[in-house]
Amino acid sequence: MPENIATSEAGSPLYLRVRDQLAEQIERGEVTANIKLPSERVLAERFETTRVTARLALAQLEAEGRIYRSNRRGWFVSPPRLIYNPTEDYSFSDNAVTQGRLPRTETLEVRCTVASAWLAGKTGLETGDPVVLVRRRRYLDERPVLVENIYLNSRHLPGIKGFDFNRSLWKLLRDQYSVDLVQKKIEMFPTALVDPQASALSVNAGTAGLCVNRCSRDAAGVFVEFDEEFWLHDTLSIQVNVA
Amino acid sequence: MPENIATSEAGSPLYLRVRDQLAEQIERGEVTANIKLPSERVLAERFETTRVTARLALAQLEAEGRIYRSNRRGWFVSPPRLIYNPTEDYSFSDNAVTQGRLPRTETLEVRCTVASAWLAGKTGLETGDPVVLVRRRRYLDERPVLVENIYLNSRHLPGIKGFDFNRSLWKLLRDQYSVDLVQKKIEMFPTALVDPQASALSVNAGTAGLCVNRCSRDAAGVFVEFDEEFWLHDTLSIQVNVA
Repeated sequence: MPENIATSEAGSPLYLRVRDQLAEQIERGEVTANIKLPSERVLAERFETTRVTARLALAQLEAEGRIYRSNRRGWFVSPPRLIYNPTEDYSFSDNAVTQGRLPRTETLEVRCTVASAWLAGKTGLETGDPVVLVRRRRYLDERPVLVENIYLNSRHLPGIKGFDFNRSLWKLLRDQYSVDLVQKKIEMFPTALVDPQASALSVNAGTAGLCVNRCSRDAAGVFVEFDEEFWLHDTLSIQVNVA
Repeated sequence: MPENIATSEAGSPLYLRVRDQLAEQIERGEVTANIKLPSERVLAERFETTRVTARLALAQLEAEGRIYRSNRRGWFVSPPRLIYNPTEDYSFSDNAVTQGRLPRTETLEVRCTVASAWLAGKTGLETGDPVVLVRRRRYLDERPVLVENIYLNSRHLPGIKGFDFNRSLWKLLRDQYSVDLVQKKIEMFPTALVDPQASALSVNAGTAGLCVNRCSRDAAGVFVEFDEEFWLHDTLSIQVNVA
């Protein structure tokens, strides 16, 4: 059994017993990543229960990150979480490829704006300082897994708005501006996805997510970019090794 | 404005507009940590809406970690998340005190058991090897914030079962066994809380949580303890600085 299954006690609600049986099938590899689960109707018949109970069991497995729903296509077993080690220095794309995944980045919006009080507090910019906002959506194996708001210090990066953001931003900063992001302050916490993030990921407002904020500076300590990532809750595992 | 408020667009559902107004009051400090919010009935009157809409707005704020529900006592503004830096070496209690919080640890269960296949895979033990399982609940300012299953290598720690686990385990290992936990592999991911974790934290099964797993070895690389922590989703912020 590769993962710890919290098995419900006898006398627990029926939907949790259905959930246990489905979780065991997933653990045993009888249904695998990205394979479609049977419909609620079929599951209800198989477990000799109602569709309401089947739906509760599926919702529980979804909340645990074991299955996910794809718009109008039904329920699927979640692929493995992408492992992210915040102490290491790799791009999303390199990290995904290393783990045998197919990454893709899609730029949703690029525009000039000014730092809010919130952004100023996070970065050391003054409220009203010019920034370029880049909104991107990122995919693993063609499933959208995160949307991000990237705030770039436009005074420090003249002409940045004109570049292609579908490629690696870190490589762009290094190649075009000779800027290496050497100081990073990273903050990660569970949150609920609200719009516009939820709709960009095709999930309902209130769906569980993981927020990853990254404030990056160059070698001289100058603020370069603030990246606010909103991941689907079942797509990332943060791993750190201390020795 | 200390945090980024995703403000709903005009034309968004009414409950999200109620949510925005409540979020702004929280951000402005008009209602502060651990202060009780008005009842659903009062909120519905104040925002000239229904109790159903007020309840949806509260559920949304709860999912975001801005408010929490205390059993039968109503809704409260969430206190700040405890900051946890996995690359630093401090105990829960020391970390909490440093951040001005009052920690408390309560041992729920101590028993001898054997390593499951899951635990063996995580630790390098053989399935069936003897372990001592310690279940604890931890509080910040008397709010329960996590429950944990600690699996101790009993061959390596003779007599460990007899000690008091309401105190720091790391200090116990150092003082009584001269064991320092110098190698740690830490894994953190969002999850849904199921029983027995959910009921130990007085929340419903399916409530969002954050799982923190920590596999610790001594200087010689011998497995000492595996700690599986289940945090309420709104209580922890993981922070890492890279330079």
